[in-house]
Amino acid sequence: MNKDETKRSCLAVILAAGESTRMKSSRSKVLHPIGNRPMIAHVVDALASAGITDIALVLGRDADKVEAAARNPAVRSTTYIQTERLGTAHAVLAAREAIGAGYDDVLVVFGDTPLLTAAPLQAARAGLAQGSDVVVVGFMAADPFGYGRLIVENGELVAIREEKDATDAERAITYCNGGLMAIDGRKALALIERIGNANAKGEYYLTDIVEVVRAAGGRATAVEAPEEELTGCNTRAELAFIERLWQQRRRAELMLSGVSMIAPETVFLSYDTRIEPDVTIEPNVVFGPGVVVESGAVIHAFSHLEGAHVGPGASVGPFARLRPGANLGAEAKVGNFCEVKKAEIGDGAKVNHLTYIGDAFIGAGSNIGAGTITCNYDGINKHETRIGANAFIGSNSALVAPVTIGEGAYVASGSVITQDVPDDAVAFGRARQENKPGRAQLVRERNAALKAARKKAAE
Amino acid sequence: MNKDETKRSCLAVILAAGESTRMKSSRSKVLHPIGNRPMIAHVVDALASAGITDIALVLGRDADKVEAAARNPAVRSTTYIQTERLGTAHAVLAAREAIGAGYDDVLVVFGDTPLLTAAPLQAARAGLAQGSDVVVVGFMAADPFGYGRLIVENGELVAIREEKDATDAERAITYCNGGLMAIDGRKALALIERIGNANAKGEYYLTDIVEVVRAAGGRATAVEAPEEELTGCNTRAELAFIERLWQQRRRAELMLSGVSMIAPETVFLSYDTRIEPDVTIEPNVVFGPGVVVESGAVIHAFSHLEGAHVGPGASVGPFARLRPGANLGAEAKVGNFCEVKKAEIGDGAKVNHLTYIGDAFIGAGSNIGAGTITCNYDGINKHETRIGANAFIGSNSALVAPVTIGEGAYVASGSVITQDVPDDAVAFGRARQENKPGRAQLVRERNAALKAARKKAAE
Amino acid sequence: MNKDETKRSCLAVILAAGESTRMKSSRSKVLHPIGNRPMIAHVVDALASAGITDIALVLGRDADKVEAAARNPAVRSTTYIQTERLGTAHAVLAAREAIGAGYDDVLVVFGDTPLLTAAPLQAARAGLAQGSDVVVVGFMAADPFGYGRLIVENGELVAIREEKDATDAERAITYCNGGLMAIDGRKALALIERIGNANAKGEYYLTDIVEVVRAAGGRATAVEAPEEELTGCNTRAELAFIERLWQQRRRAELMLSGVSMIAPETVFLSYDTRIEPDVTIEPNVVFGPGVVVESGAVIHAFSHLEGAHVGPGASVGPFARLRPGANLGAEAKVGNFCEVKKAEIGDGAKVNHLTYIGDAFIGAGSNIGAGTITCNYDGINKHETRIGANAFIGSNSALVAPVTIGEGAYVASGSVITQDVPDDAVAFGRARQENKPGRAQLVRERNAALKAARKKAAE
Repeated sequence: MNKDETKRSCLAVILAAGESTRMKSSRSKVLHPIGNRPMIAHVVDALASAGITDIALVLGRDADKVEAAARNPAVRSTTYIQTERLGTAHAVLAAREAIGAGYDDVLVVFGDTPLLTAAPLQAARAGLAQGSDVVVVGFMAADPFGYGRLIVENGELVAIREEKDATDAERAITYCNGGLMAIDGRKALALIERIGNANAKGEYYLTDIVEVVRAAGGRATAVEAPEEELTGCNTRAELAFIERLWQQRRRAELMLSGVSMIAPETVFLSYDTRIEPDVTIEPNVVFGPGVVVESGAVIHAFSHLEGAHVGPGASVGPFARLRPGANLGAEAKVGNFCEVKKAEIGDGAKVNHLTYIGDAFIGAGSNIGAGTITCNYDGINKHETRIGANAFIGSNSALVAPVTIGEGAYVASGSVITQDVPDDAVAFGRARQENKPGRAQLVRERNAALKAARKKAAE
Repeated sequence: MNKDETKRSCLAVILAAGESTRMKSSRSKVLHPIGNRPMIAHVVDALASAGITDIALVLGRDADKVEAAARNPAVRSTTYIQTERLGTAHAVLAAREAIGAGYDDVLVVFGDTPLLTAAPLQAARAGLAQGSDVVVVGFMAADPFGYGRLIVENGELVAIREEKDATDAERAITYCNGGLMAIDGRKALALIERIGNANAKGEYYLTDIVEVVRAAGGRATAVEAPEEELTGCNTRAELAFIERLWQQRRRAELMLSGVSMIAPETVFLSYDTRIEPDVTIEPNVVFGPGVVVESGAVIHAFSHLEGAHVGPGASVGPFARLRPGANLGAEAKVGNFCEVKKAEIGDGAKVNHLTYIGDAFIGAGSNIGAGTITCNYDGINKHETRIGANAFIGSNSALVAPVTIGEGAYVASGSVITQDVPDDAVAFGRARQENKPGRAQLVRERNAALKAARKKAAE
Repeated sequence: MNKDETKRSCLAVILAAGESTRMKSSRSKVLHPIGNRPMIAHVVDALASAGITDIALVLGRDADKVEAAARNPAVRSTTYIQTERLGTAHAVLAAREAIGAGYDDVLVVFGDTPLLTAAPLQAARAGLAQGSDVVVVGFMAADPFGYGRLIVENGELVAIREEKDATDAERAITYCNGGLMAIDGRKALALIERIGNANAKGEYYLTDIVEVVRAAGGRATAVEAPEEELTGCNTRAELAFIERLWQQRRRAELMLSGVSMIAPETVFLSYDTRIEPDVTIEPNVVFGPGVVVESGAVIHAFSHLEGAHVGPGASVGPFARLRPGANLGAEAKVGNFCEVKKAEIGDGAKVNHLTYIGDAFIGAGSNIGAGTITCNYDGINKHETRIGANAFIGSNSALVAPVTIGEGAYVASGSVITQDVPDDAVAFGRARQENKPGRAQLVRERNAALKAARKKAAE
């Protein structure tokens, strides 16, 4: 941001009142997530990162939910409801009150462009600072078909030509309208109000502002941004496409910072995923929101993490499920069909086979045998299991919470533990074995007879 | 289909007698699946969807299996065995009897083109209806090298020129022979029989029919279809490529209908997968045959479904395995290393951690604790477990079927349940716990001594 | 290899002394794995497969580890440490002693090009055999920007022109320097020592050898190799890119040999993965090192194999975790959240639901019930479980090793087995069930009261 810009006040109008019909969705498209965060929140993030603090939200469907999703501590936003749908210029005018408040710059941004970053916003505002009345953000389209072409002559934007109105020469232009626009805040209201609806659909198109401002002797220009940043979302396929671009961007950032991914295209990140350098991520890992992974950890294949903290040098997976509140210490191990929820796994502790740990504290160096289950739920309440350092929980044990296993204690395999186990004690909670010699043959005969009887009954 | 076509009778000859040597497979290539359905069945589906009911199968290797795989209630098919392999025209003549039966139209279709749809079939037949004697379906090849080029002059197909015989100018043509062909049914047999084998390999090539029909004063034309639909399969790599195109097509259809996929390229569908709008599918989900998912359900990452019905608003996964007969009610939950087979999971019931449910009925609102196992198999027979509504099964319990747990009943954690539990009863089936204070140190010493002894013995 | 080459002696100098700063890694980049094998080992493999047995390693960072990773029984390698970093020619001269030993051919190879095969090495050496003094391996760059262009005139390489020094005409050249080079062994030392450092950075560039050799009246030529084989690795993103190319290459080889992959891009192989024809691999399968799969086996989705042997016709997954020493017999089945480590699973045996089998022998035809756990670890030692043929282990059993279950024996569901079970015996090790009629309501009331009390306490 140059000095001029920082001095200029700015309002961003976010248009998010569309019906989203092509999404075939029960909610507004701007609520659909990208990187596990609503689309609209990404747009607000981009504005905030460009230093823009005043936002006018133009909403329609699901206004309450969209307003909530757009909330961001770095910005002040006011909501305006567009009740009729008469075109983009009409939508912007729903925020007439805010636009008329006397900002230096007014930005018009679309709520369905979650790949937007600060750069195009700043470039558009810089255009205003340099004397333009209207600055349109364009992009070089890989395939321009269907987009409005930007007709630029002598450095000025003379028109935005729609596909159907374009000459063959104009159709060959690949510089296209990206939707995003900056308008001189002192003139914005007057200019937009002058836009007419003398067209086939009888709608008010914001793109007509170029014609309006030039007719009034003003100056329109264009600035270029990458196509990706301006990509809008109208269908579920476009939603998936944007998600893909977003994931690629985040994966590239992480790899650049020193994170190894064997197959980056199979790693799915969330908006707030934090991974330190020299972490290795194997194929097929999903990061839900709220995950932090410290340096030297390895996230093995087929792992799913959410709200979890993974300590330095820890090993997660393959086939690990870390749920919110899972907190793995240094060099801890969780894998092979284990689920951890709201539990501390101490440094070097191992939870490695077919185990469920919920609402628990496991001391450093403890070994939790295969098939261990913390029975944390009584149908109404959740209870805690506390296991001291260097304890050994024998395989296939059930720890019925609330219960405490002392430091260095042993729980015999196959036990049901309902009472506390003191430090260094051994606890048994299993029945004695009894063998019935030769009886297997009888069992087989009985079972075979049952099968025959069932078959007969079925005839 | 226009009116003329509906009146015209049609025979489709499917060529599927190839040796499939490049597949290096123990079975015919047309038996290999695409979307979990044999390739040949997709071809028959395309014919059926184009309203074609009479089919002649020309088979060689694995004829019985291919015939079975091609069975379709909407068509009548007759099998002809090609015993020698002397070229495509020779293959078609294996069905001489059917071709000579007096159909208006004869289509020649390849059994290894599972991406075929009705459109090219209808276009080719329309060509016959408009007076052509032979209609070849061509495609604009991304890379024409190796394909026969379609030489079209004044709207007529004058030749199919093989790569090796083509001039430089002809090689520049990208309009290529797609294999699929329609022939006037009254002339088909005579035309095909006139094809000679005066070529390097001494084989009878169906493509020579263009020359034959023109020499006889007849008319050949070409119609264009997308390259994808005509893609044939000769290697396992091509099989994977076709699978990929097929999956992309089905994913796109589902997204268009309102299904969200965060990473569509990681979702694998079967030919009969049915998913309602407003279902969200996370990355890495595999749908085997026979799955239906109702609106509002979420299929989380790393889930594998097969023969399962997922009710509205239900939550599946992450790490869920639904096998045939799994039937989840509204808002039911199955995830985190749970397997369900041939079982009803009632509305709002939860099966959420390391559990195996097989041959069972679980009442609405019941909670199945972590590590629960329905012991449904006695080595010979399968037995049922019935759990009433709002029951609570404590973690790590074994329910030995046949057994019934009443409504509102509680099973204590770690129990082995072998007898029925009445409504609202609490059942215990576990041993009492006993602690041995201070004994852990002895256990550790004994184990360490054993280790030392083993080490010594190994020296 | 032609006859001349086999007679010529050859030294390969591998440059692997870089700081790898852009990897942001705690170890040298050539230690990072491709296909689960350090990059440098792939390069040595390529040399060995080209029949080159004498190698000079020029190392810097992590020299000991790199030397170890480069070890290969087919080659003799000597390590030279580059202490200062003054350019590639300076790096090569670290191996001055070896280069001066009088080989016919000297090859200079980069340690970060793991996709290299024997072909370019042989082509470069053939150039020497045909009279060149220096042979540079080039490639046709998809995007030549930034690469040194190979200026070839009358069959001779006249210069390698860096981007910044190139004319527009030279910049249009796409034939680029691939780094790999062969030098006449009798002249190599003299030529390299004549390279100066009169350039902006004051470094000694090996590419200047072209100028040097021509100035001395010698002959330089270029040979072409595929861009892929010469791809170097400087960032984690490039590491991921190389991994991707490597995986594609191996997948294609396997498919060509008769292995089916439904979605090859989701199957991850290791350098030593061996899979026989007519094996089917479903989506999302990870092969760690040391896996062999025999013909007719199916590896279902979401499986992770490492150090495992899968017998003919066996079925693995979905959701199987085979760890080192897992050895599945013919037609054996392991799937649905089962983990197997260091264990024989006999022919036709089934381990199919939520089971952990470690340090075990399971006889042919045995059925291991859902939730079975072999308790193989006492905190210090691992113990064995032996299960005879045709045994039946009831669900949710814990087998406390060391223990032997006889042939044809039955273990009742939910048992803890601590003693051997004779052949054909039935073993019980579980508590008797007790029902408390009507008590569930009391439990619910007590739990609800607890909840209320907690809530109150929290206020």
